[in-house]
Amino acid sequence: MPAQNVAPMTLESGGQTYAAAGVDIDAGSRLAARIKEIVRSAGRPEVLAGVGPFASLFRLGSYREPVLVASADGVGTKVNIAAAMRRFDTVGVDLVNHCVNDILTTGAEPLFFLDYIASAELGEEDKVAIVQGLATACRGAGCALIGGETADMPDVYLPRAFDLAGFIVGVVERDRIIDGSAIQEGDALLGLASNGLHTNGYSLARRVFNVGRGGEPEVEKVALYRTYPELGLTLGEALLVPHRCYYGEVKPVLAYLKGIAHVTGGGLIDNVPRILPEGLAARFDRGAWKAPPIFTLLQREGNVSDDEMYHVFNMGLGMVLVCAQSDIEAVRSLLPEARVVGQVVPQSGDKRVILS
Amino acid sequence: MPAQNVAPMTLESGGQTYAAAGVDIDAGSRLAARIKEIVRSAGRPEVLAGVGPFASLFRLGSYREPVLVASADGVGTKVNIAAAMRRFDTVGVDLVNHCVNDILTTGAEPLFFLDYIASAELGEEDKVAIVQGLATACRGAGCALIGGETADMPDVYLPRAFDLAGFIVGVVERDRIIDGSAIQEGDALLGLASNGLHTNGYSLARRVFNVGRGGEPEVEKVALYRTYPELGLTLGEALLVPHRCYYGEVKPVLAYLKGIAHVTGGGLIDNVPRILPEGLAARFDRGAWKAPPIFTLLQREGNVSDDEMYHVFNMGLGMVLVCAQSDIEAVRSLLPEARVVGQVVPQSGDKRVILS
Repeated sequence: MPAQNVAPMTLESGGQTYAAAGVDIDAGSRLAARIKEIVRSAGRPEVLAGVGPFASLFRLGSYREPVLVASADGVGTKVNIAAAMRRFDTVGVDLVNHCVNDILTTGAEPLFFLDYIASAELGEEDKVAIVQGLATACRGAGCALIGGETADMPDVYLPRAFDLAGFIVGVVERDRIIDGSAIQEGDALLGLASNGLHTNGYSLARRVFNVGRGGEPEVEKVALYRTYPELGLTLGEALLVPHRCYYGEVKPVLAYLKGIAHVTGGGLIDNVPRILPEGLAARFDRGAWKAPPIFTLLQREGNVSDDEMYHVFNMGLGMVLVCAQSDIEAVRSLLPEARVVGQVVPQSGDKRVILS
Repeated sequence: MPAQNVAPMTLESGGQTYAAAGVDIDAGSRLAARIKEIVRSAGRPEVLAGVGPFASLFRLGSYREPVLVASADGVGTKVNIAAAMRRFDTVGVDLVNHCVNDILTTGAEPLFFLDYIASAELGEEDKVAIVQGLATACRGAGCALIGGETADMPDVYLPRAFDLAGFIVGVVERDRIIDGSAIQEGDALLGLASNGLHTNGYSLARRVFNVGRGGEPEVEKVALYRTYPELGLTLGEALLVPHRCYYGEVKPVLAYLKGIAHVTGGGLIDNVPRILPEGLAARFDRGAWKAPPIFTLLQREGNVSDDEMYHVFNMGLGMVLVCAQSDIEAVRSLLPEARVVGQVVPQSGDKRVILS
C-alpha cells in the first residue's frame, strides 16, 4: 500500500482528548482514502503494492551500475499566491516539475516522488487538489507518486497559509552521468523557453504587486484579478502558471549533452556557472530569445534593474543545455524548440555569465 | 557536491530589488558553506562528490534484486516545543530516527536522507543546529545526509515557528522484505522501549501543559522550565527527548522477524493492526512493560482516559516485533532488551488490539 500518511488530527476544541477527534479521525481516514486513489493513478509497475504501511517500496529494474539521483525542494512563496487565489491544483505540478528538472540535469530518469503538505487549517478539498496536481505531473513525467505526509500543524503556519515540499529519486547509469566536466570553450548554449516565473523570484514578485503577503484577502484579490492586456490573463493566473517539465523534451537528446543547467533561484547568473568547468564563462546573446510578458510587466511595475531581473528570474529560459557546436543540428532535429542563445567562452575577469 | 540548497533570500526592506539582498546573499552563502561541512561529516562512500549541483548522487551497491524503500515525514508539532525552548539541535535527530524506523519495518537498510527546513525568520545558528541534529542521527544510523532545502518563507510561517520535513531512501533485497504476511496465531509480540513521546501526540501534550502554542514566550517558559520530580527533568527537556532509533538493535535479528510495527501516531491501537493479516488481532499484557513517567504525568495533568492515552501515544513501546514463539530466545539472545509483551490471537469482534 503506498503510504500517504495523514498525520493525526489536532485538537480543535473540547476537553483533554483527541476529541473533536471523533470527527477528525473520520475526516483523516476519508482524506487518506481519497489520496490513496489519486496516488494509485500515478503508479509504475515497479511499485510494490500491498506492503509497507510505514514506507513505500519500489523495485529497481536492471542497471549495469545504477546511480540514484535525489533532490528535495519546495516551491518557495509561490504557495502564497496559490493560497491567496484559493487555487490549489497547480502548485503540485510546480513542485514535481521542478524536482524532475533538477535531477534531469544529471541525465537521470525520474523513478518516484514523495510529498510533504503542511498547514494549520487547509481543508480536505484543498489538500486533495494539491495531491491531484502532484499526480498529474508525476504521470506526465512517468514518475510514480509513492507516498507522502499530510500534516496539520497549528501554531506553526499562518491561518490561510500552507507549505509544500517534495522529494524525488531518479536513476542514471554511472557512465551516462552528465556533469559539465566535458564542457569546452566554443561549446553552444541552447535555451529552452520558460513559461513564466516557474518557482523562483516570488518574494520579489509578491512585493512588486503587493499580493500573497497576508494582506486583506479582499484587497489582494483586486490586484490578483486585474487583467493586464500584455498577459492575456489575470495577474494571479499569470503568477500561477506551472513550472514547465523538460524531461520529455530533453530525454531524446541526452546523449549529445555535456551539461544541463536548471534556471532556478539566482537566474542565469547563478545557475549556469554551477555546471561550467573552471576558467570558462557563458556568454548569452540577449536578443536570441524573448522573455514572457510577465517579466516585462514585473520590471516596469517594480522599476527593477536589468541586472536584478537576470539575477532573480529565469527571464524566459528555463533550461540551458550545453553541447558541441557540431551537435547543434542533431539536437535541434530531435528538439526543435532548442535555440542557440550563446556560447562558452574563456573567463576573463570575475564574471562567469556575460549578457550581451 | 552534496546539494543542500539555501533558497534565495527574501526581501526585508528597501526598494524593489532583492536588495537587502547584498546582505542576504552573503548570509545565504555562508550558511550554505557551513551546512556543506556538516553534510560532509555524514557521508558514505557511495555518495558521488563533485557532481550534481542541482541534485545529489548515490551509487547503489551490488544487490540481487534491490527494492528501494522510501518514506517522507515530519516531526509534527514537536517543532513547536523546540521553538518555544529555542532548542534546535534535537528535532533533526527526531526526524531522521523516525524515518529510519519507518523503513526498518520492511527490513531495509537506510542509504540516504534529504531534509526540508522552512521558516519565516529562523536564524543561521538555529538552522545550523537543526542540520547538526540531522547529521548526528544520520551518522548514528549509517545513513548519508546528501542534501536538502533550507527555505525562508515569509507570510507562511508564524514569527517564531519553523517546520522540518525529511525524506529517506533505503534498500532491501526483495526476498528479505518483512511485510507481516507470515504472521500467525500464537506468534509472539516483542516490545522495544520508547524513551518518551517520540514524535507523536504533541498536539495533545501541548494542550495539556499549555506550551508550544504560540503564547507569550515568558509565560510558556515558566511551564517548560518547571521540574517535575518524577521526570528528573524539566517539562521542556522531557518533551524534547529525541525519538529513539532502533536500526542498530533490530538489524541483527531481522532474519527472525515476521513483522515490525513502528508505534507512531495512533499508538499501539492503530499501528500494530497495519502489519497483521486479516482475522488476527494483537493482545498486549499491559503489565509486561512500564510507560516512561512523562505519560503518567500527561495522563494525570490532562485527566486523559486510558483508551485515549493508548490511541494517541506510544505508551512506552516504540517498536513492536513479531516472531514465532520458537524464535523468542534467538531474538532475545541478540537483542536482550526485547521483552515479550503479548501475542497474536484470532480476531473476535471489531477490536484488532486488545489491552489486558
